[in-house]
Amino acid sequence: MSLPANPNLPAVIVIFGASGDLTRRKIIPALHSLRCSGALPDFCRLIGVGRTEMTDEDFRGELLEGIRTYARFKPDICDTWPQASQKHSYLVGDYDDPETYRRLGERLEEAAATCGGPGGFLFYLATPPTVFATIAEQLGKAGLADRTQGWVRLIVEKPFGHDLASSRDLNQKLHSVFSEDQIYRIDHYLGKEMVQNILTFRFANAIFEPLWNRRYVANVQITAAEDIGVQERGGYYDQTGVVRDMLQNHMLQLLALIALEPPTAFDAKSLRDEKVKALSALRPAEAAHTVLGQYVGYTEEKGVAPDSLSPTFVATRLDLDNWRWQGVPFYLRTGKKLAAKVTEVVLEFKQVPHLFFPSTSAFTPNRLILCIQPDEGVHLRFQVKAPGSGMLTSPVDMEFHYDRAFGEKALADAYERLLMDAVNGDASLFARGDEIERAWTVVEPLLKPVPEAAAQGLPAYEPGSWGPPEASRLLARFGSGWRKYCGWQGTPACERAAELAPGACGGPSGEA
Amino acid sequence: MSLPANPNLPAVIVIFGASGDLTRRKIIPALHSLRCSGALPDFCRLIGVGRTEMTDEDFRGELLEGIRTYARFKPDICDTWPQASQKHSYLVGDYDDPETYRRLGERLEEAAATCGGPGGFLFYLATPPTVFATIAEQLGKAGLADRTQGWVRLIVEKPFGHDLASSRDLNQKLHSVFSEDQIYRIDHYLGKEMVQNILTFRFANAIFEPLWNRRYVANVQITAAEDIGVQERGGYYDQTGVVRDMLQNHMLQLLALIALEPPTAFDAKSLRDEKVKALSALRPAEAAHTVLGQYVGYTEEKGVAPDSLSPTFVATRLDLDNWRWQGVPFYLRTGKKLAAKVTEVVLEFKQVPHLFFPSTSAFTPNRLILCIQPDEGVHLRFQVKAPGSGMLTSPVDMEFHYDRAFGEKALADAYERLLMDAVNGDASLFARGDEIERAWTVVEPLLKPVPEAAAQGLPAYEPGSWGPPEASRLLARFGSGWRKYCGWQGTPACERAAELAPGACGGPSGEA
Repeated sequence: MSLPANPNLPAVIVIFGASGDLTRRKIIPALHSLRCSGALPDFCRLIGVGRTEMTDEDFRGELLEGIRTYARFKPDICDTWPQASQKHSYLVGDYDDPETYRRLGERLEEAAATCGGPGGFLFYLATPPTVFATIAEQLGKAGLADRTQGWVRLIVEKPFGHDLASSRDLNQKLHSVFSEDQIYRIDHYLGKEMVQNILTFRFANAIFEPLWNRRYVANVQITAAEDIGVQERGGYYDQTGVVRDMLQNHMLQLLALIALEPPTAFDAKSLRDEKVKALSALRPAEAAHTVLGQYVGYTEEKGVAPDSLSPTFVATRLDLDNWRWQGVPFYLRTGKKLAAKVTEVVLEFKQVPHLFFPSTSAFTPNRLILCIQPDEGVHLRFQVKAPGSGMLTSPVDMEFHYDRAFGEKALADAYERLLMDAVNGDASLFARGDEIERAWTVVEPLLKPVPEAAAQGLPAYEPGSWGPPEASRLLARFGSGWRKYCGWQGTPACERAAELAPGACGGPSGEA
Repeated sequence: MSLPANPNLPAVIVIFGASGDLTRRKIIPALHSLRCSGALPDFCRLIGVGRTEMTDEDFRGELLEGIRTYARFKPDICDTWPQASQKHSYLVGDYDDPETYRRLGERLEEAAATCGGPGGFLFYLATPPTVFATIAEQLGKAGLADRTQGWVRLIVEKPFGHDLASSRDLNQKLHSVFSEDQIYRIDHYLGKEMVQNILTFRFANAIFEPLWNRRYVANVQITAAEDIGVQERGGYYDQTGVVRDMLQNHMLQLLALIALEPPTAFDAKSLRDEKVKALSALRPAEAAHTVLGQYVGYTEEKGVAPDSLSPTFVATRLDLDNWRWQGVPFYLRTGKKLAAKVTEVVLEFKQVPHLFFPSTSAFTPNRLILCIQPDEGVHLRFQVKAPGSGMLTSPVDMEFHYDRAFGEKALADAYERLLMDAVNGDASLFARGDEIERAWTVVEPLLKPVPEAAAQGLPAYEPGSWGPPEASRLLARFGSGWRKYCGWQGTPACERAAELAPGACGGPSGEA
């Protein structure tokens, strides 16, 4: 992660699925912004491959539209388009047709000849997952995975399999063409500044790590809430469900970063070894410690089966069997159509061993809150003496937010970071094959259809709530409660009220 | 400290030195504000005793003027004056004249008869220290220290002695009339919210105490800087000097609260036992670890001797010999005419055991900053990932400030708190006799005239600086540097610059 810009540039970037949404919304705007910010000064060529008929000119127009709409640097601030667009070309073809790869090979050969330097090829699989293995196989057959001309890397989008068996199968198929160090499995959560900051926070500071264990931490809460529903993705989502869509990848990645032991060095191998170790300490999820839910109205969404039993919400307690975390519950919850769009990690600390302050004090546990999105920052909940007479205490937050400290524009998009790392050959922020398989092992028990659900349906929850009431009862069983989220500006009154009088904030006790 | 309002009210308050500055500026405004805020609903009578001739009406006029100018609640917000003023009377007399106390006795007897209830007498010695013992002795002779009518307490202002011998002598004289539990030695620093908050911060939170020891703390810095000079107090100050004026009392009290072990309970005995224990672990100050200084222009101040060798600045390294703090330097500095008016306590933490982030990172140690005044709060300096590519780190602050969380008017004046506690019989925030003596033992070595100073004068420093350059060199000898103070709003650019390039912020390296 600390590599200098790779001397092997210029690179040629090939996007499969080039006519798709991801290309237009994420990949192209990220490449544009990388160029504008100077983080990735140049790449030689961009070749789009897709099944949709399109001229080069159409393709360039689509990309420009994507940049205008989605890029951090708009074309009027940083217009590299006239020069850059000449390098973008489009290739129509079927993914299982060798002819597609023969023509791609010609273009790559031409690029290698004109771009100068050894360079390298970056293949980005932005297609549906059903063709990942096919494309890899065809690239191999066409000799395009051959590294004698320079480096060759493969970025694979999620989902990486739909269960343990299929992820193993996909790994095997990719490995028959590419070696593991060529494969960059992308999880855009790992590109977020605050996710990377978890490592800095833990290991560039001397004061947090001593507290970061079962002696002081009572529980860890990881919430990734979306306020939107499935929107246009009903068909895909209904096949997938929340466990595959969020829990197996993003949530377990966050958990791994919070739980891992200090790596020896800050390189891809050390870091991913530690993540695998942490995930290996995780017991597989238990249905008895899990609440699935479905928002009211989900089955009326476009593309969703009227009798669908796909969950749109999951809350689960996970446990790690190791010296650091034994007995510390990790509570994870994620879902659609919840009360807010927010991702946060909360370390809730144990009580002081001996409290000699008046019992009338407004006492809440210490909490360290890592605000992952949307307003990246860190809060530390602690007690102060309430102003005035007596020695009553009152909970307050120390807070830090990126935008106030560094300015609004400072934070790069996750895709920018990850694309740059892939071009530079730094795989630290990409998931390794064994990580993915381990994560599937953990969530596997939650993928089976629930017998009761077939009879009664999944627990329902109102859009705009924090999920089904069962999710609060789950934590209450273990003597905990979800942190009440009321935004991160200061310590809002609603949050304090909820802490001191559970249920005061428009929800059942502990439901927050 | 957690006592309910004392049922023995109403009280009669007697102020010796009633025509003086302290009465008008501090004591009366505090009593007024206590009444207004409802913290001290009522006291029955106020009797002023002084040597200046004055009618009751003159006296009341002076007090009203003091309230108008200095009280937190102005009379137009909270006007209890018409009712309250009738209870204020003035008694002129010499402090060594038994007749003064006979007449005072009559008034107290009359008050005891009309006020109803057992009540109590609070004698406040706001006189020059030379008459503390005399007044106590005369009160005893006149039978006014007798507790059969109700409680009797004595508040003694600073300075409490001018060295170890004189403080012992004063303790003995007071003890011949009053028992230790009747004596309330006031140090107004202990009435400040943030000073009391040190105890809440340490012992109502589970996450700081594990770090609060030699394993994690590299050094502790306590700064109490004044930006003003001696002003009208040149005569008094020149006899006293900075060691007696600030170091022996306020600074060592702060040190004791930072260094002490957790008390068993939150009462006067437990707390003061722990303070004495901490002060007893302190090695007496060493001249070789101390820098004294005098600001340029001091000897031209009114009341100051032209050849004065009184220090107006002191910086010293103190060490505690106990299991918690062995080897952790406590750096204290205080002085007049410095660059800012600020009191803060900084815990600077040790480096991480193994740092794997790029060496080009802007790395500074973790610091916990307790902002005592003027803008009460807490800052925690830590490293985050600098936004953008790479894994560079950057120091930032998490911060909390009382006024932003609770509103401007929330913080009571120190005298309010201490007067209320004295009336309620809570001595927790007052210094006990053995504490005071122990503090004198610590500073005693700094009270002797310095032989070199007689020949060369004290190290000089410019008004508006952070003291003589020797103060920076002192810490540099131990591998440390004073924290650069640039205000507490965010992490100012000047502070970051100073951290990363010492000397960049308008001072020699490390001088901050």
